[in-house]
Amino acid sequence: MNKIEHIGIAVKDIAAAGKLYEALLNTPVYKVEEVASERVKTAFLQSGPNKIELVEAMSPESPVAKFIEKKGEGIHHIAFDVEDIEAEMQRLKAEGFLLLNDKPKPGADNKLVCFIHPKSTNGVLIELCQERR
Amino acid sequence: MNKIEHIGIAVKDIAAAGKLYEALLNTPVYKVEEVASERVKTAFLQSGPNKIELVEAMSPESPVAKFIEKKGEGIHHIAFDVEDIEAEMQRLKAEGFLLLNDKPKPGADNKLVCFIHPKSTNGVLIELCQERR
Repeated sequence: MNKIEHIGIAVKDIAAAGKLYEALLNTPVYKVEEVASERVKTAFLQSGPNKIELVEAMSPESPVAKFIEKKGEGIHHIAFDVEDIEAEMQRLKAEGFLLLNDKPKPGADNKLVCFIHPKSTNGVLIELCQERR
Repeated sequence: MNKIEHIGIAVKDIAAAGKLYEALLNTPVYKVEEVASERVKTAFLQSGPNKIELVEAMSPESPVAKFIEKKGEGIHHIAFDVEDIEAEMQRLKAEGFLLLNDKPKPGADNKLVCFIHPKSTNGVLIELCQERR
């Protein structure tokens, strides 16, 4: 895994959180994007080679809405940048990690993504993401 | 802020979590260090320009023990690398963020650190860290 691609932060109000993180990181939100498959709206800020992804649920059925209901706002997932997502999924499955999808699926920011169940990673929801080519 | 310096993950058993994250990230734990002031043991793994810091409480009074008691194992904080921690603390205080210490204090991995209260950052505990010179 090449680096932390981004940290996903679950928020209730992405406009307000966007302003707050702009002040915190001293850098503007450079992209706002809806991800229909996850029923979320996302906003991105850059921090050097890494990104912060703010995530707001667009429906009470969104996994992010359920996360906030259960745990409150806060860090939702860590995404690692990978070269070859299928090879990495294969490797992790062989290591015994529990993948949440069988095949890479489209994520925000022009990525192919796969999630790993937090049960197999000390409570941390991990996303693998590969730039779509 | 230059980049995400590390992500801190609160774990109950740092030896077991270390092995698991070595398999996950396909890279060895390269440093284990106790931070007396925080009553924690830490283990570091590299992911490109970023690090994963596993944190185990060494006392039930450690903030990390309390975190796990309340929320379970999982992502505990995000640390951002800063050039000049005192200037950054000044800037953030002026922006209205609630700093948890008045002066930079010694952290793991040869750093000066300061924490920002999660109340002022959508539930996210944020650490600023500057390499000690």
